Amino acid sequence: MITTDICIVGAGPVGLFAVFEAGLLKMRCHLVDVLTQVGGQLSEIYPHKPIYDIPGYPEIKAQELVDKLMEQIKPFNPGFSLGARVETISREPDGSLVIRTNDHTEIHCQVLVIAGGLGCFEPRKPDIDRLIEFEGKGVAYMIKEPELFRNKEIVLAGGGDSALDWTIFLANSAAKVTLVHRGDTFRGAPHSVEKVFELAKAGKIDLILQSNVMGLNGEEHLQSVSIAARDNVLTTIPANHFIPLFGLSPKLGPIAEWGLMIDRSAIEVNTIDFSTNITRVYAIGDINTYPGKLKLILCGFHEAALMAQGAFKYVYPGKKLSFKYTTVYGAPAF
Amino acid sequence: MITTDICIVGAGPVGLFAVFEAGLLKMRCHLVDVLTQVGGQLSEIYPHKPIYDIPGYPEIKAQELVDKLMEQIKPFNPGFSLGARVETISREPDGSLVIRTNDHTEIHCQVLVIAGGLGCFEPRKPDIDRLIEFEGKGVAYMIKEPELFRNKEIVLAGGGDSALDWTIFLANSAAKVTLVHRGDTFRGAPHSVEKVFELAKAGKIDLILQSNVMGLNGEEHLQSVSIAARDNVLTTIPANHFIPLFGLSPKLGPIAEWGLMIDRSAIEVNTIDFSTNITRVYAIGDINTYPGKLKLILCGFHEAALMAQGAFKYVYPGKKLSFKYTTVYGAPAF
Repeated sequence: MITTDICIVGAGPVGLFAVFEAGLLKMRCHLVDVLTQVGGQLSEIYPHKPIYDIPGYPEIKAQELVDKLMEQIKPFNPGFSLGARVETISREPDGSLVIRTNDHTEIHCQVLVIAGGLGCFEPRKPDIDRLIEFEGKGVAYMIKEPELFRNKEIVLAGGGDSALDWTIFLANSAAKVTLVHRGDTFRGAPHSVEKVFELAKAGKIDLILQSNVMGLNGEEHLQSVSIAARDNVLTTIPANHFIPLFGLSPKLGPIAEWGLMIDRSAIEVNTIDFSTNITRVYAIGDINTYPGKLKLILCGFHEAALMAQGAFKYVYPGKKLSFKYTTVYGAPAF
Repeated sequence: MITTDICIVGAGPVGLFAVFEAGLLKMRCHLVDVLTQVGGQLSEIYPHKPIYDIPGYPEIKAQELVDKLMEQIKPFNPGFSLGARVETISREPDGSLVIRTNDHTEIHCQVLVIAGGLGCFEPRKPDIDRLIEFEGKGVAYMIKEPELFRNKEIVLAGGGDSALDWTIFLANSAAKVTLVHRGDTFRGAPHSVEKVFELAKAGKIDLILQSNVMGLNGEEHLQSVSIAARDNVLTTIPANHFIPLFGLSPKLGPIAEWGLMIDRSAIEVNTIDFSTNITRVYAIGDINTYPGKLKLILCGFHEAALMAQGAFKYVYPGKKLSFKYTTVYGAPAF
């Protein structure tokens, strides 16, 4: 059995930085992630993409940020169980927790921090014939690499900001963009809605309202999409790619069974220390929610810092926490 | 009159980053700072000191962080009134605000953000004869450059973490360190208290309890300090420096007269958007307080991001705010 102070589920940027904040308070961490590498979505989905809103970095590539965070937490020597999914959590008589993963690792900890990020969510999949069959062969639920769609014929579906934003974005580079929406008004930002209607008017995209995608056609790869209007007339249009953008649904796995308060797919926390309704269980980063919540990495960093203050009382019961600045004391290693 | 969307009082790291978060939402900023340079305490007090707790920077010199933040906000072209102190604030009939500085600059804005930092605080000065006279001639209220005290005879006074921490720190480099405390127990971290008693026992420092510094002696420069015990016996010991560490008191200046809710020298805010009790006035960074507050730069960055979301409704009334990731859209300049 691995013994640690804090077990962090999720080794994305926020989970990683939590090791630093815990380390400053002399708490050791062990991280578990279902991915086989650290960095979460940054390393998995957009390693080479620049990020512009990390304070102090006018521009930094996602993977570079992960590398810097790994360097920053190195002195605190965290443990890692990568490629492992948390299966069960149980409580010891003294209140501490035991986490078990699908590869039979057991981790005994005083505090559990869920830093699962957006990786705990999956795209909502519409009920369309052969959708699953064409996944990776023309059907995509998110746009990881926009260049793949250059000069291709694309059908998007949805009525929210993602559908609008990607329609606008791809209009510049794709051979043809068609946006299918079952309603005739959009839920997105007024400016984006306006822009989509402008593009349609100018003939730069096709906008098919009050309609639904009903079927996907092709052999090895997607070739066309069948669309039904409200009058049930079926139109089939050529398409290399179909991108349904109906939002995300939670894929919390066993976490969902632990009795955590969930609000719209996110774990409710208080803003004092980002603790959940379950004692010794904290949630930080994109997986949590609270009034004002923004799903930004920089907000997760703040949440990690306050979480560490809260976790301290379980790791060092009865000990007084004193707050020190790294400018005076540095970040002494274990 | 200068016209802007957001007037930010305080051009330290948090005030600077607020320009970025506001800029992403197309809001323009003008910064006012009493210092003649940007960067706040980072540039003023410890430009060459490394900071270790900026996420993604294992180590960064304070001035380098300021330089990076200036580069990051450059596309949003903020205005600056440096070397200026806010004197008055008044409200226009439409709810917007006019800020006037001591150099007669007038700034019309929709939202005021106070990002005054610790710069809005001043050290509490004990009531000791000739204290003011020896300021800069042996009396210091904070330690900006520890090297100045190497091989000197130092008397510190106080019973909190600062007094303990600096006593421990200077014990290594000063010729002699004496800590004077009026009580016989300390308010600081148990570990630090223990260490100070150890140092005293080992003869590495002098610890004078139940005593007060009563007088300072010298001609051009401080030469000795007179200390009274509870039995009123006066002892005079040689000292090149006297450092009273009795905490900070607010120096909010005219801000104090605006009717803001103040809790122990800090401005109370809510954690949804870091707004104060006064409409259109926000407070971010070390000058604010809320449950769980940590005076960390990284927390101020988070506060700046949420503040911008809240400020938007005053700058663009009736407009829907849509949330965009810089990985998709970059950070387009004005």
